[in-house]
Amino acid sequence: MALIVQKYGGTSVGDIDRIKNVARRIARTYDADNQVVVILSAMSGVTDQLIRTAEQITEFPDKREMDVLLATGEQTTVALMAMALTSMGYKAKSLLGFQAEILTDSHSCSARILDIGAGRIKELLTDNHIVIIAGFQGCDAKGDITTLGRGGSDTSAVAVAAGINAAACEIYTDVDGVYTADPNICKKARKLDRICYDEMLEMASLGAKVLQIRSVEFAMKFNVPVHVRSSFNEETGTMVVKEDANMEKVVVAGVTHNKNEARITFKKVPDRPGIASRILAPISEAGIIVDIIIQNTHDDNLADLTFTVGKTDYKTALAISRKTAAEINAGEVLGDENIAKISVVGVGMRSHYGVAAKMFATLAAENINILMISTSEIRISCIIEEKYTELAVRALHTAFGLDQE
Amino acid sequence: MALIVQKYGGTSVGDIDRIKNVARRIARTYDADNQVVVILSAMSGVTDQLIRTAEQITEFPDKREMDVLLATGEQTTVALMAMALTSMGYKAKSLLGFQAEILTDSHSCSARILDIGAGRIKELLTDNHIVIIAGFQGCDAKGDITTLGRGGSDTSAVAVAAGINAAACEIYTDVDGVYTADPNICKKARKLDRICYDEMLEMASLGAKVLQIRSVEFAMKFNVPVHVRSSFNEETGTMVVKEDANMEKVVVAGVTHNKNEARITFKKVPDRPGIASRILAPISEAGIIVDIIIQNTHDDNLADLTFTVGKTDYKTALAISRKTAAEINAGEVLGDENIAKISVVGVGMRSHYGVAAKMFATLAAENINILMISTSEIRISCIIEEKYTELAVRALHTAFGLDQE
Repeated sequence: MALIVQKYGGTSVGDIDRIKNVARRIARTYDADNQVVVILSAMSGVTDQLIRTAEQITEFPDKREMDVLLATGEQTTVALMAMALTSMGYKAKSLLGFQAEILTDSHSCSARILDIGAGRIKELLTDNHIVIIAGFQGCDAKGDITTLGRGGSDTSAVAVAAGINAAACEIYTDVDGVYTADPNICKKARKLDRICYDEMLEMASLGAKVLQIRSVEFAMKFNVPVHVRSSFNEETGTMVVKEDANMEKVVVAGVTHNKNEARITFKKVPDRPGIASRILAPISEAGIIVDIIIQNTHDDNLADLTFTVGKTDYKTALAISRKTAAEINAGEVLGDENIAKISVVGVGMRSHYGVAAKMFATLAAENINILMISTSEIRISCIIEEKYTELAVRALHTAFGLDQE
Repeated sequence: MALIVQKYGGTSVGDIDRIKNVARRIARTYDADNQVVVILSAMSGVTDQLIRTAEQITEFPDKREMDVLLATGEQTTVALMAMALTSMGYKAKSLLGFQAEILTDSHSCSARILDIGAGRIKELLTDNHIVIIAGFQGCDAKGDITTLGRGGSDTSAVAVAAGINAAACEIYTDVDGVYTADPNICKKARKLDRICYDEMLEMASLGAKVLQIRSVEFAMKFNVPVHVRSSFNEETGTMVVKEDANMEKVVVAGVTHNKNEARITFKKVPDRPGIASRILAPISEAGIIVDIIIQNTHDDNLADLTFTVGKTDYKTALAISRKTAAEINAGEVLGDENIAKISVVGVGMRSHYGVAAKMFATLAAENINILMISTSEIRISCIIEEKYTELAVRALHTAFGLDQE
């Protein structure tokens, strides 16, 4: 008998028929002699609808109350799922965030899980219940309802799996697993059987939308094996696990791309200490996250400084930058929305030389110019012109031996 | 400074504009130097919609999960109301049943309130907050969500008012208050300025739908003055209060009618001990509530037994009765759906003679035949033919001096 946590996303429980389908899948897992804890998202579209309702009341709804409102989405699905299972003759009970003792900090709309008090969950499991828990929501020390931010149900699932020492955490979604590249642009992309936490973290933060980053951090911290798979078929998906020796033999696990950034360049900035901070402080004060930053110096004691921001923040960041440039007597400020970030990721890089050189050579062979470079221990990213995105992904996929046989 | 509890029903918060209107009314009460605690129902129609959704999952949804599902209705309105008030610059926070510590028993879908732990409410009031509480819902000792049954928000409001020792409990609804008779059939009906708990209890159980009966029981038990008034105007409504000496001067406070009953008659029942129980036990075992029961004896050691049940239970009760009649060798079983119950209510009856005689004489003067009679200390009810309902109400209203001047 194994203790299994299953998480189903909004598409998987998107209507009454899909809820019934998921109920049958849960029942099969239970019938195969497992203890089952299920985490559910709101039905797809519901959270957006609730946000639109709140915006009819006021342009800037109180965040504490937004949490109370949004929490109704998951509350609805867990009640309906428990009804579906009880009507099939199974013992099933729903638990909301506060009932499952998902304790968070008090940051409304983006709370972080602090602890899982598994008392009620274990009690129900011992009594042979299937336990259906509302994802995305928790409860702070005062007893206020909190929510975890977009994709938060993934984190709920992994945290609960950690809290009750589950054998595995299965994340059911609308894709088959984690791929070596986006199958929509790279036909030769392969589904990965295994990927380690570090790689998954990089992939997630680079735009592979299978798992919320925080859920991967949680899985890594508590060593929870995560199985990403489709709720629409029975195929095995991708196991996200602890790094093992075998993984290092593969230099690159995957190639990712991200078209959601834009870059801003300050030309001819007086090259004196503190100037980068002078430029970037107003950006961060506006709540805008900067990704890659590059500064290069000219002979004439002037420097160029370039950085990238999310496309949704681009116009605001550009306006702030032009104001700053005038204040510090910099040259012109250039903006470019037509860029893409291409990355190769793999723990094998730690023990293999020449990955960067190979990446640059591959891009050069396709006449793709590299605009910016950024690296971590297990990742190399290049900013290129957006129009070369698909070509670059395919070329790197082939060059690093990832193509399907 | 007074501590006031206000309850707004589903029609009063039926859409975004109405929620904003109610927010302004709450704000005016707060600005008039009061502490304000608000109890809200779900937006009108929402509870029915949720029930229909559950029925798409299964014909007989699990009741515990139905509570979880239905509780989202009030959760939505309290969040939106708190948003509306905060956007107007007021300090306001929503509390769900469990957060307001509305402790109930564990009877899903028809729980009874056991206790109100007013800690969080008082804390927020001390901090100058307007407190917005989800009506209709509570939480049992295990931490499971419960709901109080149709009209339960009235009871939530009165219980909270009792729990925090509020100066008054205002019930905002879509009528102006409690009337001496239904204004739709008796044009001379007057709005009552005051009515005592006992009278209100009788009126409520006789079909005047302004307040849930349990809320009146609660108000009486804890001596909470209840003010029933309209949320669509500023008029004073009806105060439901403790009986005082003045009230006894008025013999009859109101005339009510109820067309929702039907009667069943057993002819020629062998008149031996235990026969009434033999007839009525199968009815009550089917979960059907019997209202009035009358038995009269013939000379030939045979009796007729007549009783009334709700119209929705009529067909079931009739079928059960015919089966019983065959078993006990009774005569035929007659049924009649075309009846009405007309009642006069007033605490003054306790000290005034001749109320019954006057009622019978008034009906006789209109040639209305009385089919059954039932009395309590402060009420006399007659079952008559349904077609005379309006005539009877108007005649009694005039006879007991209730007509508008």
